[in-house]
Amino acid sequence: MTEYFEVETEAAEQSIDITERVKEIVKRVAPETGTAQIMVLHSTAAVVVNETADPNIGKDVLRALDAFAPRRNDWLHDRIDDNAHSHVKASLLGPSEVVPVVSGELLLGTWQGIWLFEFDGPRTRRVAVHVSA
Amino acid sequence: MTEYFEVETEAAEQSIDITERVKEIVKRVAPETGTAQIMVLHSTAAVVVNETADPNIGKDVLRALDAFAPRRNDWLHDRIDDNAHSHVKASLLGPSEVVPVVSGELLLGTWQGIWLFEFDGPRTRRVAVHVSA
Amino acid sequence: MTEYFEVETEAAEQSIDITERVKEIVKRVAPETGTAQIMVLHSTAAVVVNETADPNIGKDVLRALDAFAPRRNDWLHDRIDDNAHSHVKASLLGPSEVVPVVSGELLLGTWQGIWLFEFDGPRTRRVAVHVSA
Repeated sequence: MTEYFEVETEAAEQSIDITERVKEIVKRVAPETGTAQIMVLHSTAAVVVNETADPNIGKDVLRALDAFAPRRNDWLHDRIDDNAHSHVKASLLGPSEVVPVVSGELLLGTWQGIWLFEFDGPRTRRVAVHVSA
Repeated sequence: MTEYFEVETEAAEQSIDITERVKEIVKRVAPETGTAQIMVLHSTAAVVVNETADPNIGKDVLRALDAFAPRRNDWLHDRIDDNAHSHVKASLLGPSEVVPVVSGELLLGTWQGIWLFEFDGPRTRRVAVHVSA
Repeated sequence: MTEYFEVETEAAEQSIDITERVKEIVKRVAPETGTAQIMVLHSTAAVVVNETADPNIGKDVLRALDAFAPRRNDWLHDRIDDNAHSHVKASLLGPSEVVPVVSGELLLGTWQGIWLFEFDGPRTRRVAVHVSA
């Protein structure tokens, strides 16, 4: 069972809390027990499970990544495009997270939520929620 | 099928080999073929699959992460808490790993084990092992 | 259902596009709906989902990782081996990726492919493709 939703990002780099959108899908289509994989279908964006209650955590992650992969750095991929740093950041965080489904709900700790990270926006990003029994 | 165990960490930052605890659960509850997801239910800790035979590998990872996300760095989240660096490190490594189950056992290479990383200890950390057929 | 293949890497550090090898296995053994986990069974290599159309993206990732974990850095693990940096890089990217299977095929965005990263080559690397319904 696979459902999709879109997110309109609003900045070049941004973290967006998608926990509620995923929970709504899981509540509607997930089995009692299983797994939900949340995957962004692009290679300059990422999905991360961490605390979303303070939006500044996403901004802190973006700042740390910017030191790791600066926008301008004589990247080889920039010879044909201008977003090498976005690919490097997305490779580091990865496009998806798997979350267990227990009693029909996502198994997340009290302070765990689901972030979508945008590294080459603003764009329309397509996210898949793939639920397995 | 979901089992839980707790780990009492002993330092602010630490890597703990949890391979045997996970294997014991898998041996007891896993089907012949399936997957096991090992997930820490906190956002300042992480689960990683790498070599655990030399504990210094965990320490080397901690040192590399410390350069990536120094404890003091004018983090925005530190305005309301003092553990932004812990969230950044945990976001990078991720809270969970999925490991295939083959012939009733975890499919791991000879030198692969399972680390729990603590980034904001000492604390009691809850780990879920979620087994699917 | 688990299939294996080997990759002969050719350099100390390298990114290799394994998308077609994984797709061939999925086409042959995957159910109509499920998941495929692609896992390298070594702790100095990694699997990443990102754009593989431009090989320079892999090289850019390698360069960013080299700044994060330089080959020579007084690593503790280097007291008994000489590949601590390889373990640190592999820990960061992780040994596996899960990809949903929808209509019998890998669910990947237009620009998403599957990289095998080598951090301690050249070696023969064993990759498992574990398919679940």
